[in-house]
Amino acid sequence: MIKVGVLGATGYAGIETVRLLLRHPGVTLTRVVSHSNVGVKISDLYPNLRGICDMEFSALDVDDISENCDVVFTALPHGASKEIIPSLYNKGLKIIDLSGDFRYDDPAVYEKWYGQPHSAPELLEKSVYGLCELYRNKIKGARLIGNPGCYTTCSITGLYPIIHSGYADNSSIIIDAKSGVTGAGRGLKLPNLFCECTETMKAYKVATHRHTSEIEQELSHAAGENIILSFTPHLAPMKRGIFATCYINLKEKKTTEELVALYKDFYKNEQFITVYDAGSLPEVKHVSGSNRVGIGIVVDERLNRAVIISCLDNLIKGAAGQAIQNMNIMCGLPEETGLDTIAMYL
Amino acid sequence: MIKVGVLGATGYAGIETVRLLLRHPGVTLTRVVSHSNVGVKISDLYPNLRGICDMEFSALDVDDISENCDVVFTALPHGASKEIIPSLYNKGLKIIDLSGDFRYDDPAVYEKWYGQPHSAPELLEKSVYGLCELYRNKIKGARLIGNPGCYTTCSITGLYPIIHSGYADNSSIIIDAKSGVTGAGRGLKLPNLFCECTETMKAYKVATHRHTSEIEQELSHAAGENIILSFTPHLAPMKRGIFATCYINLKEKKTTEELVALYKDFYKNEQFITVYDAGSLPEVKHVSGSNRVGIGIVVDERLNRAVIISCLDNLIKGAAGQAIQNMNIMCGLPEETGLDTIAMYL
Amino acid sequence: MIKVGVLGATGYAGIETVRLLLRHPGVTLTRVVSHSNVGVKISDLYPNLRGICDMEFSALDVDDISENCDVVFTALPHGASKEIIPSLYNKGLKIIDLSGDFRYDDPAVYEKWYGQPHSAPELLEKSVYGLCELYRNKIKGARLIGNPGCYTTCSITGLYPIIHSGYADNSSIIIDAKSGVTGAGRGLKLPNLFCECTETMKAYKVATHRHTSEIEQELSHAAGENIILSFTPHLAPMKRGIFATCYINLKEKKTTEELVALYKDFYKNEQFITVYDAGSLPEVKHVSGSNRVGIGIVVDERLNRAVIISCLDNLIKGAAGQAIQNMNIMCGLPEETGLDTIAMYL
Amino acid sequence: MIKVGVLGATGYAGIETVRLLLRHPGVTLTRVVSHSNVGVKISDLYPNLRGICDMEFSALDVDDISENCDVVFTALPHGASKEIIPSLYNKGLKIIDLSGDFRYDDPAVYEKWYGQPHSAPELLEKSVYGLCELYRNKIKGARLIGNPGCYTTCSITGLYPIIHSGYADNSSIIIDAKSGVTGAGRGLKLPNLFCECTETMKAYKVATHRHTSEIEQELSHAAGENIILSFTPHLAPMKRGIFATCYINLKEKKTTEELVALYKDFYKNEQFITVYDAGSLPEVKHVSGSNRVGIGIVVDERLNRAVIISCLDNLIKGAAGQAIQNMNIMCGLPEETGLDTIAMYL
Repeated sequence: MIKVGVLGATGYAGIETVRLLLRHPGVTLTRVVSHSNVGVKISDLYPNLRGICDMEFSALDVDDISENCDVVFTALPHGASKEIIPSLYNKGLKIIDLSGDFRYDDPAVYEKWYGQPHSAPELLEKSVYGLCELYRNKIKGARLIGNPGCYTTCSITGLYPIIHSGYADNSSIIIDAKSGVTGAGRGLKLPNLFCECTETMKAYKVATHRHTSEIEQELSHAAGENIILSFTPHLAPMKRGIFATCYINLKEKKTTEELVALYKDFYKNEQFITVYDAGSLPEVKHVSGSNRVGIGIVVDERLNRAVIISCLDNLIKGAAGQAIQNMNIMCGLPEETGLDTIAMYL
Repeated sequence: MIKVGVLGATGYAGIETVRLLLRHPGVTLTRVVSHSNVGVKISDLYPNLRGICDMEFSALDVDDISENCDVVFTALPHGASKEIIPSLYNKGLKIIDLSGDFRYDDPAVYEKWYGQPHSAPELLEKSVYGLCELYRNKIKGARLIGNPGCYTTCSITGLYPIIHSGYADNSSIIIDAKSGVTGAGRGLKLPNLFCECTETMKAYKVATHRHTSEIEQELSHAAGENIILSFTPHLAPMKRGIFATCYINLKEKKTTEELVALYKDFYKNEQFITVYDAGSLPEVKHVSGSNRVGIGIVVDERLNRAVIISCLDNLIKGAAGQAIQNMNIMCGLPEETGLDTIAMYL
Repeated sequence: MIKVGVLGATGYAGIETVRLLLRHPGVTLTRVVSHSNVGVKISDLYPNLRGICDMEFSALDVDDISENCDVVFTALPHGASKEIIPSLYNKGLKIIDLSGDFRYDDPAVYEKWYGQPHSAPELLEKSVYGLCELYRNKIKGARLIGNPGCYTTCSITGLYPIIHSGYADNSSIIIDAKSGVTGAGRGLKLPNLFCECTETMKAYKVATHRHTSEIEQELSHAAGENIILSFTPHLAPMKRGIFATCYINLKEKKTTEELVALYKDFYKNEQFITVYDAGSLPEVKHVSGSNRVGIGIVVDERLNRAVIISCLDNLIKGAAGQAIQNMNIMCGLPEETGLDTIAMYL
Repeated sequence: MIKVGVLGATGYAGIETVRLLLRHPGVTLTRVVSHSNVGVKISDLYPNLRGICDMEFSALDVDDISENCDVVFTALPHGASKEIIPSLYNKGLKIIDLSGDFRYDDPAVYEKWYGQPHSAPELLEKSVYGLCELYRNKIKGARLIGNPGCYTTCSITGLYPIIHSGYADNSSIIIDAKSGVTGAGRGLKLPNLFCECTETMKAYKVATHRHTSEIEQELSHAAGENIILSFTPHLAPMKRGIFATCYINLKEKKTTEELVALYKDFYKNEQFITVYDAGSLPEVKHVSGSNRVGIGIVVDERLNRAVIISCLDNLIKGAAGQAIQNMNIMCGLPEETGLDTIAMYL
């Protein structure tokens, strides 16, 4: 059994990681760490775990963690991960970081979008971007994973094949993304109150959201050239889910069927990506509760523009599920181990 | 007092028209018509009206209506309006039609997008497109109004000023719109069930929604040239609200502040349109329950692309409220009569 | 025009009072007071007011308020009202207090349930319990109103007639009440987050909620004897609404029809209370957005037990609306002035 | 591998049974039957199954089912099950019926509450009431299970121990129950529309709901005497969950701690029932997505009345999950097989 620990286990991504790990047949959860809840039972904060996992949160103690864990998931705030991970890394642990700190090729991009210098650029070089479907081979040999963001996993899986194909005008990309409220985290902020965010919608961080840079990095790899694009995040009154509506102009005439075929081929070996047949489109409820991405495509022939719909569960494929998928790859387990729950639909 | 009747009063747009008319100080509601509920009290179907309006639904009887009404609101399904309106029109009534049947300049466009020939093209010529802020003067003298759709009112008010200014590349328009579920109506359709549409999002009628043609018609007027554009409707788990995120490339460099100034000037006399200051954006809850449109603008200077957010309450400014605003204009009443309710926020 | 001020205008009850007062034809809003937001525009916190009311919050200055207001609404936290109200009262102002501080006959009851001594017992004696339908005559001459709580207005109006009739066993009363989340206020507390309270239900403060004592006080008046009862509040995933299911054993056999007749008679002059016919029951959406209470009755003849359903909008009849109704009575205005909005249903 | 079939697989209880069976390690799903969808892929109706289960619905053919199934789950409407089950039973199949048709000891009770004669009273005698925690031993040897209702499982598990203890006044029982909308099923009925049931609450079938009789039957067994009680179902705006607030007077003084101890002892061997410590109470989100029941207790010492909170996921422990738990018992599998998913919380 692989011994695993979760740092920052009280946040929504952290607790979802715990919930999934508790049913993973190949691991034992040995540590849950929360600075502000040392000695508190995890099942007192999350009573769904009562009788299933009544572990107490421990403090962040690198020696203790390294003695008791083989793999560590860090679900800390952006900026905090890069301060603690070097000491964990030096202990020889395998680390999957759910923050934005180890997702970038270039520390300058991180610094620009996160507004702080990167304190561990040498580790950034060693880290692998953990979008499993794209970087499986590099993940196998990695010890530090920058686990992708929720918006980014959704947007990148949705746009990679068409951009990689060369059929598209890469200057025309617009991603209009909608997120459930778990994406905003568990922080006590006024806009996260039920009465503030039910029965409404809003856009936020228009043209400035950090995930823009992460999507651009990866789609630039797909294109083999530098891409900049529009990314507009919205908050929708639901708990889970990212729904990205992606627009891209085609350089030559293509039908919906041709693009669907392109996508089906691109993802033909991927069990966690479902490309929908022409004429049908994914919805959040088709994937919510699962580690899946649903992708559907419509070509608007009047405009020769492709509309690509991509959706996933932000806490699973957009965070905890993909983190575990990365662990499975790193540890040589079948990729779907512990991740085979079917989307709830209801 | 103006005597008014509502045809198709049991649907969501119809009943909202009734609800607003019952508190309009200048009108008396004399007839509520519902084919399938003749003799039933309106307050039995909508118990919020109990003790306030216990009228019975009557059958559709043109003579009866013409004797008892000065103004008629028709909230019938698309296609049905154009069959009944000619006989009402010939009786000399003022008619405000909430369906799509009398919104078009060109019957061929109607036929193409609604899949049926227009049976009253001569009336289509006489009808005025009832987007009050654009066509106030023509509405004053009209007897038949094609009351705009919800998506269309939201999209057109959001994009008209920038397109009219000539600053934009009119081939680059993308409207990504999100609607509450009242927009889907009161029909007994599986996707409208609570359990089917809560905690999820979906896109529908991608590249084929009828409102596309209505938006194109009006924005072509703004541009003075023929415009085609992308319009993608989505369903979000809320009752009321349209939220349109509109993308358009700028032909020359403009700042957010410059476009905000342009919009503030364009709508400077409009009490129902609020242009937000640079740095702030409207949300559905800012307008829900009111006859207002909220508009906010961000220029993404990296891409020289404007992102324009427009939102409204689909049942009020997107249907019943605008219909009453049209009536007020047609009848010489102050435009805000009966329409001054402040958005609920909560 | 009556000059009015609102203290504590940023909370949900306070802002709803503001929203309703802005459309009240007999008042001018002259002051909105918020300790923590002095100088901030109210429309910056609540953008639904943008262009409608852009007043700035002022500090709490008793002289300033007494010079500029005739009537003051205090929507302060429980405990804080009783500290500030004496100085306002001494200035000769009419005061309607939305907290629990001036609702009790007996300061000892207040002290027991609110856990603090009452610092202004002499004013408590002068204050009138502002349940308009029961105490209209005393309200007319009052200068200080203890505006009833949301759960309490709902429960008392639902149970008063049956208890007053003497038909019931007063030792058997159980009130199972469900509230929307606005009832929990605007405080930054974890359980109020969207993700914590959507798609779930919970009971809270079982057997200990303060409103128990307020309901017991008033129903004891109805009975002419001391009543103690069970009151269980629940939180439901909706914004607005109180829904109280009240159980009471009958001492003698009564039919549903007989009790409906009793209630219709009891409330026959009340425009804000709708007693439903036998066979139909109120729902939150029948009253949400209005100042109404809906009451329905079923006698379970197998058990000779009455089930009485009562519901209202907690922010309106349960707070701001009833406060304005009290003002109307105190100031000699028609009781419904500014309160005639029809429930939204949708 | 046990071969299983699901009849009525398109309804919400049926599809949840399918979803859980697909991840049950001891079974193979061989038939999904839907009269009205023969030849349609199950994943076309429920796209969350796309790529996971693309079986086609077959018609109801008793021979085909008996050749291809060992166990059959019937999720048919009440009344329909009793018509088809005899022929399946005669083929030697094990049958778990999710309808109300085989839950009763006495056909007269069924006839009274379901309004139709029972056409298979001889099978009713052979059927076992499938509340696993109470009837495990009888279930082991059964071939026909009447799988309990959702409200009933919740209410019975909540009240059984206190009634069985003899401490309570059995004439005082009131169950105030709240259900998510999946409980209303997938039928195309107006009250099930999103816009009809979001942002509201209602009671329905007050004093007449069929589950009353099922609860009374089982609690009478607990008491050893005939019990009648009040049961009031409500609809709350959430998908999943039953939340029952149960009231019962105590014959002698008991503390919360004493009753918690009683319940913990009663359920000490039950992995799917969590009795909360005094001072904490279950919420729907603690159990939603799992096969668990959460039970919490408060004694109101002022009234000597116990308030017992019980909640569960109506589709799992209230339907599909308990059905599978029954199958596991009948087939000699560990009871939790395929049922170990942890509640989602988020």
